[in-house]
Amino acid sequence: MYKLLKQVEGHARRGEFVTPHGTVQTPAFMNVGTVAAIKGGLSAKDLEDIGCQVELSNTYHLHVRPGDELIKAMGGLHKFMTWSGPILTDSGGFQIFSLADLRKITEEGVSFHSHVDGRKLFIGPEQSMRIQANLGSDVAMAFDECVKIPSPREYFESSCARTYRWLVRCKSALAAYNAEPDAVNPGQMLFGINQGGIYPDLRVDHMKAIAELDLPGYAIGGLAVGETTQEMYDTIEIVQEHMPADRPRYLMGVGTPGNIIEGVWRGVDLFDCVMPARNGRHAHLFTKQGVINLKNERYARDESPIDPECGCPVCRRYSRAYLRHLFKAEETLGLRLAVMHNLWFYNDLMAEIRAALEAGTFGEYRAKYSKLLDTRI
Amino acid sequence: MYKLLKQVEGHARRGEFVTPHGTVQTPAFMNVGTVAAIKGGLSAKDLEDIGCQVELSNTYHLHVRPGDELIKAMGGLHKFMTWSGPILTDSGGFQIFSLADLRKITEEGVSFHSHVDGRKLFIGPEQSMRIQANLGSDVAMAFDECVKIPSPREYFESSCARTYRWLVRCKSALAAYNAEPDAVNPGQMLFGINQGGIYPDLRVDHMKAIAELDLPGYAIGGLAVGETTQEMYDTIEIVQEHMPADRPRYLMGVGTPGNIIEGVWRGVDLFDCVMPARNGRHAHLFTKQGVINLKNERYARDESPIDPECGCPVCRRYSRAYLRHLFKAEETLGLRLAVMHNLWFYNDLMAEIRAALEAGTFGEYRAKYSKLLDTRI
Repeated sequence: MYKLLKQVEGHARRGEFVTPHGTVQTPAFMNVGTVAAIKGGLSAKDLEDIGCQVELSNTYHLHVRPGDELIKAMGGLHKFMTWSGPILTDSGGFQIFSLADLRKITEEGVSFHSHVDGRKLFIGPEQSMRIQANLGSDVAMAFDECVKIPSPREYFESSCARTYRWLVRCKSALAAYNAEPDAVNPGQMLFGINQGGIYPDLRVDHMKAIAELDLPGYAIGGLAVGETTQEMYDTIEIVQEHMPADRPRYLMGVGTPGNIIEGVWRGVDLFDCVMPARNGRHAHLFTKQGVINLKNERYARDESPIDPECGCPVCRRYSRAYLRHLFKAEETLGLRLAVMHNLWFYNDLMAEIRAALEAGTFGEYRAKYSKLLDTRI
Repeated sequence: MYKLLKQVEGHARRGEFVTPHGTVQTPAFMNVGTVAAIKGGLSAKDLEDIGCQVELSNTYHLHVRPGDELIKAMGGLHKFMTWSGPILTDSGGFQIFSLADLRKITEEGVSFHSHVDGRKLFIGPEQSMRIQANLGSDVAMAFDECVKIPSPREYFESSCARTYRWLVRCKSALAAYNAEPDAVNPGQMLFGINQGGIYPDLRVDHMKAIAELDLPGYAIGGLAVGETTQEMYDTIEIVQEHMPADRPRYLMGVGTPGNIIEGVWRGVDLFDCVMPARNGRHAHLFTKQGVINLKNERYARDESPIDPECGCPVCRRYSRAYLRHLFKAEETLGLRLAVMHNLWFYNDLMAEIRAALEAGTFGEYRAKYSKLLDTRI
């Protein structure tokens, strides 16, 4: 359930999204824990400490290892990883289309080989829903095809049509699985995913079609896969006009702090991205002054924290000099502290955005930070 | 300063060791943080959470990277790594003799090549003391030669004589450095190190000689490098008779939980070992029932904690099934949680030993656990 609290500037929305495991204050950034653990060595306890509202896990990875049936037997993903807040799982589609080898798409679904042990697997809409029902996430994502940009218009047309038919199957399958007496999370919700590349008419037609299925939320998928930033922003603007105003809107896999500010401006409520964790592992750290590379010699004797304006557990305790030393010595502690800082930065960015929306100052916030935060300094 | 609180059974001692950064309740296990970070991704905050009393860092590693002069400029090792409790640094000798290439020993010291970048380095007693004074640890260890077992008796004789001459130089050098106006930790103490392999007369002669230098503490070095366990225990028994009763006794680089219980029984106060961290990284976890290998298939759906009797932050939250999954998926979080548990286990073992000494039940504790804890189950 989505409750719009305030909409004052542009299309930006301040709202609340109610899930079986708690209410999410939106706009929100979902923290990616691919295999029920955050890359860099962060625990569920760490997520609590850095202000994470929603954890996002990957269906494909968990299906391959340790297996969704094992996780169901352990009481579901929340219990397995000891995260009591909301969890969203992707459909597996994006990973199948980007990681797996020798895939073959039919109307039924996708055949492919596991990236771990090469064994043959098949996932279609019903399999994806079964896996996500076994995991017991709060939000299950529809099984769709994420088509790379550029691709021929004809391919997008046929893919969108099939993704729509798959969505219809997802909806009825998930409803059936969650009506079973041993369902892990009977209140699990299904989000539909809009596709269509950067063809405005395909995007709008597809959005109108899936909106009629009356799902608890909708995502814009298939972006940040080859288009320009402006094309991404234009696509959001075009699609959001046709997204139900009383449902949460999720922009999948995006992006930089600037991208997120611009996404919020265009009406997006939920985001996810591997960027804060991945950049952290490369010693690229977000600050309110721009992105710094901690491996730079200039930080060797720098006693200040990563970001003097930051209140995260890392900045409250450790110096740039110490963190740089950890990276140079290839100590895994360096990765963990860098990822903690970057995820805090993203979560804190969302808190600041929400506060600006409430105060009616988001336009100024956007003007000040939209470009600045993405600058490498 | 060492204060003997109680000595009731065998040679086991319950005491207190006062350092410039706090009092250590002994017997105690020192947690190894080689380059000012604990292998596996543990932070100084984690050390606080797992009951660590003393942190141990490696002089050689820190000299090579980031450099002891940098650490001095950053206010010393305590401030650099944000650990406010006692720190002991080794002399660099053990690493030079085990890691470095092309070493050449003279009366002055040792020439060798850095294991990181191959550059030529020289460390003798004065250099080791200068580095440790720059780090500002609470206990500096004497620069000695750690001779492998077996080696010819003649080699041990000449090495012990040189190590004694080096100790005299260490004592005067460290006193001079810590009298300088910008000394990082003027209260830094020097521990002498007993050598002599498994030759009882060499051990005793060397111990008597170094005892006359009236140092704040003494270590038994050169063990766990090739001798049998019984030879190690026999050597401790022989040496401890000649160690000053009013100074702390440190058994270097030892060992298993059983070794530690037997060391305490023979009068040792301080221990260090990489075993809990190294075993943790290989998913070998200590429990009160013996050592388990968490990668074993039998734990795949085991909802119990690593050790049902353990109160550590890992056992209070996570299941064996989840931790095993992290190891199988090669997530660094698995390493961190395993090392946290094992270090807690060692720190808790020492707390139990101290409690048993106070209660007069250490003989029973030893009989129950000395073999059991080292058993692989």
